[in-house]
Amino acid sequence: MKFNVSSSDLNQGLAAVFGAVPSKATLPILETVLFESEEGRLKLTATDLEISIIEYIDAEIEEEGAVAIPAKRLLETLRQLPDISVFFDVDPSHNVKFKTDKGNYKLMGEEADEFPEIPNMNEGMTLTTETELVQDAIGKTMFAVSTDDLRPAMMGVYFDISETESKFVATDGHRLVRFVNRNLKSEKPVSFIVPDKALNLISKALDGADCDLTVSDDHAQFKSGNTIIITRLINEQYPNYESVIPRDNDKELTVDKNQMLSTVKRVSVFSSSTTRQIRLQLSPDKLTIRAEDIDMSSEAKETIACDYSFDDMEIGFNAKYLADVLSNVDGEEAKFEFSTPNRAGIVKPVEESEGEEMLMLVMPVMLNNYA
Amino acid sequence: MKFNVSSSDLNQGLAAVFGAVPSKATLPILETVLFESEEGRLKLTATDLEISIIEYIDAEIEEEGAVAIPAKRLLETLRQLPDISVFFDVDPSHNVKFKTDKGNYKLMGEEADEFPEIPNMNEGMTLTTETELVQDAIGKTMFAVSTDDLRPAMMGVYFDISETESKFVATDGHRLVRFVNRNLKSEKPVSFIVPDKALNLISKALDGADCDLTVSDDHAQFKSGNTIIITRLINEQYPNYESVIPRDNDKELTVDKNQMLSTVKRVSVFSSSTTRQIRLQLSPDKLTIRAEDIDMSSEAKETIACDYSFDDMEIGFNAKYLADVLSNVDGEEAKFEFSTPNRAGIVKPVEESEGEEMLMLVMPVMLNNYA
Repeated sequence: MKFNVSSSDLNQGLAAVFGAVPSKATLPILETVLFESEEGRLKLTATDLEISIIEYIDAEIEEEGAVAIPAKRLLETLRQLPDISVFFDVDPSHNVKFKTDKGNYKLMGEEADEFPEIPNMNEGMTLTTETELVQDAIGKTMFAVSTDDLRPAMMGVYFDISETESKFVATDGHRLVRFVNRNLKSEKPVSFIVPDKALNLISKALDGADCDLTVSDDHAQFKSGNTIIITRLINEQYPNYESVIPRDNDKELTVDKNQMLSTVKRVSVFSSSTTRQIRLQLSPDKLTIRAEDIDMSSEAKETIACDYSFDDMEIGFNAKYLADVLSNVDGEEAKFEFSTPNRAGIVKPVEESEGEEMLMLVMPVMLNNYA
Repeated sequence: MKFNVSSSDLNQGLAAVFGAVPSKATLPILETVLFESEEGRLKLTATDLEISIIEYIDAEIEEEGAVAIPAKRLLETLRQLPDISVFFDVDPSHNVKFKTDKGNYKLMGEEADEFPEIPNMNEGMTLTTETELVQDAIGKTMFAVSTDDLRPAMMGVYFDISETESKFVATDGHRLVRFVNRNLKSEKPVSFIVPDKALNLISKALDGADCDLTVSDDHAQFKSGNTIIITRLINEQYPNYESVIPRDNDKELTVDKNQMLSTVKRVSVFSSSTTRQIRLQLSPDKLTIRAEDIDMSSEAKETIACDYSFDDMEIGFNAKYLADVLSNVDGEEAKFEFSTPNRAGIVKPVEESEGEEMLMLVMPVMLNNYA
């Protein structure tokens, strides 16, 4: 195999697939990137057996072939090079020699056949959408994904695409986010759970304008521009999240999002470091946020203006979860919906884009009264 | 104690002294910052018993007093506040109440008398110099400080101030740096070793133009602007470093620093990850840098132009130490001085500022010949 490639193209391509290279691989072959010539271009593939990334880059192929090259060493060398042409020459014993006008380098490659097979997605169903839509949905939901191994279904974002809309859901049991987008639909309804690590890579590595989403029984493929990401799906039943969203919320509170967020962050410093508990005291057009830590004899109290015209109410939250939810509210104002202090609080943005609907939910914590 | 202070002034002051607060304190009092009123200003003090930082900030003192306040919690609150006025009210039981127009906060303080005593530097000898000179000398030498607990004398920068010049020296046995500055002198010669952590703080926290350097038997004090840093000195004999600097170097090599540095970094990727060994092959006006890793069957070779007119020579270095030294060469060109492959290589900048003299030394490694 022989080819000429620009060091910066190769660098970008390697950086894109490098996300799938496991930091500690059980199989040494997983630490390599598969180089293949394909229709006058260079195809780079990396995989950790769960997630695979494929990137196509321009190259001048002088002799067709394939080889697996240790990813880290090659990337480290390329990072130190200016944008120059690199000539690769791979011999039948997988010696990878490459040269630039700066010098000559040699690495030991691996037999391409040793590289794990990448799932074939030809049998899957494909939907075409915009990359931005997918990345936006992931960005809005990913923060609530659970890290609890005991509930694997919740360790990813649930994609539920129907004939009328798509729902993206994430929850860790303490908070929940459901983002609805009516611009992505499918004649044949499909639902699946995309694991956390893949979500991260999809947010970063896809850069084309359109995105082809292909779903098979076990895998989903996101293809955009020169990049293809294939991930194994979480093969579990997603919990019946709709049942935990309270319907009869008679109390509405509208508040400046950033003001409330900075208040929550300040006051929470004075909360107990184990519970992170803060209390929201609602009274007409006045929201008081309090925290106390009995062990440290510390307490804080701040009052901010808001829009509220219902009965007085006091409800407790974990400050971290409340802050996470608030910082994911788009726009300047957030609307809370409450029923009773022992039921979840709902948070929504006041303004939304056409065809989008965001709902977040935070579980309350039980309050102990203090003086 | 009662005072009014701007949140941003207090924030800056706390951030400056926070460097001395130990991350894991054995004594809880060390996690506090001592607040004292002094001549119409607020004096903040933090210490880890080795290093103390004092910062003066403007405040409107309504009632004199002193209290020790938990540093982290206060700093976290202040970080979330915009620039507003904060009113502090400390009662005789060390309850620290403070309020802003946003809200009310309470923390439990500690008795000021519990705070450790800060070394008294009145007996010391004082030199006045420029902060920039001290920070520059530290910046040029700190990289070579040893982290080896077994050789405590080398775990700091050696300050050797005589009637004609000052020398700043650091070494870890693999490389050595000696920076001479003839603008700082002392009628009474003085020499001492400043520990690593203090060097870091001096580089960051001092911001006035002038610096008063006071030295006593066990401590050194750096005072600049509103900040005072007092550090315990390393009470050891500094090694006789002059004896390891080779004098009779008959071979000189002048090279573009950045070109050589990027070559060393690139080639070193192909060196053995345990030895990091690279070899420099010198021949007339040509420098070839090579590395090989037999275990990984990898090798690299680059040649760059240089200024060299002596006998051919081959010398081996640890790539990391060589790169460290090169990146500390000021200006565009570096000058190497060599004698034989088993003696240290000397590196100097080609151009130097008036009154300054920089010398670095890298120990060679023994080369095994290979095909």
